[in-house]
Amino acid sequence: MEEKEISQAVIGRLPRYLRYLGDLKDEGVERISSQELSELMKVTASQIRQDFNNFGGFGQQGYGYNVEYLYKEISKILGLDRIHKCIIVGAGNLGQALGNYMNFERRGFHFMGMFDKNPELWGKQVRDVQVMPMEQMEEFVRTNQIEIAVLTIPKTSAVEVAERLVENGVGAIWNFAHVDLNLPEGIQVENVHLSDSLMKLSYNINRSDN
Amino acid sequence: MEEKEISQAVIGRLPRYLRYLGDLKDEGVERISSQELSELMKVTASQIRQDFNNFGGFGQQGYGYNVEYLYKEISKILGLDRIHKCIIVGAGNLGQALGNYMNFERRGFHFMGMFDKNPELWGKQVRDVQVMPMEQMEEFVRTNQIEIAVLTIPKTSAVEVAERLVENGVGAIWNFAHVDLNLPEGIQVENVHLSDSLMKLSYNINRSDN
Repeated sequence: MEEKEISQAVIGRLPRYLRYLGDLKDEGVERISSQELSELMKVTASQIRQDFNNFGGFGQQGYGYNVEYLYKEISKILGLDRIHKCIIVGAGNLGQALGNYMNFERRGFHFMGMFDKNPELWGKQVRDVQVMPMEQMEEFVRTNQIEIAVLTIPKTSAVEVAERLVENGVGAIWNFAHVDLNLPEGIQVENVHLSDSLMKLSYNINRSDN
Repeated sequence: MEEKEISQAVIGRLPRYLRYLGDLKDEGVERISSQELSELMKVTASQIRQDFNNFGGFGQQGYGYNVEYLYKEISKILGLDRIHKCIIVGAGNLGQALGNYMNFERRGFHFMGMFDKNPELWGKQVRDVQVMPMEQMEEFVRTNQIEIAVLTIPKTSAVEVAERLVENGVGAIWNFAHVDLNLPEGIQVENVHLSDSLMKLSYNINRSDN
């Protein structure tokens, strides 16, 4: 696929489009105009047209967009048309929550292994996967050519574990540890710092109280 | 506190400043220049100065910033200098993970109640809190003047539950349900759509493979 460089802001909006288009598809809707989509999603129609123009437009003037086609194309752009092999490092509540979340599997994210340093968790079953000791992580990653590692471990060990993962071929980290990972160029990192988001909420409460 | 309107982009960066300043404080660092902070955080010094200028600057030219003071001021701006009473709705793995996360408590987010519709979870202990039936949620919220509700329930019930919470006085929703909540103006909502973030990661993997 040939594309020009697209801003992360646009990319950040694509999953939301996909969510609405998926719902429309499930409801049997075949076509939708940017105006209708705009009312549904509460963004301007011009924003929608601009966003979609980044990928060649997807629509014919006056006809609206083909929901099924648009859904498929956005999925492809997001890399959801192929399998991503994943492991989860950290089998606490958060790790288990992510492991149990079937929707990721449906999107092509295959949950293949789970690791923890706590012996009490070894052997614990999370979906089809049993929690393994940390010592087995590196070999597992190499043997199974794991692409994505989800980090749900404390920040004290996250930097070192991330480096070990990358050395063994992991190309992307979905990081829930509350620390910035400085990894080599080419390694993709997406941080989910939950308390940052809670603080943003708290700021907005504070403002609206004034 | 009197402030001009500050962009959400700046607000979004404050928690990260707070994290680094907290670490510096723990290490006993008293003063830091924007240049040093810039190298540590890998953002430009001019970005840091611009961000801090939104709040009056915090620093004296040439002296650098007082770490303790800066930490306290940013905490105040983020509303972390007071107690926020919270409940969690949905006692699955994710709800339990959030309930167990002590760091939120330290920031002033007091976890007071937890609710689930699954009778098997009723009475289950998460920190000092026992899971209660959904039927008790509304009265609990009113009696305890709950300010923030964390939603970790499926999207099918999230919209209705959010409305009930707001009707009973909740002013802010930290929403993990994969649906947009359209709530009255003045109600603060912060969405954490985890799969959106995973898809962004998948997009970036896809790009870097090309």
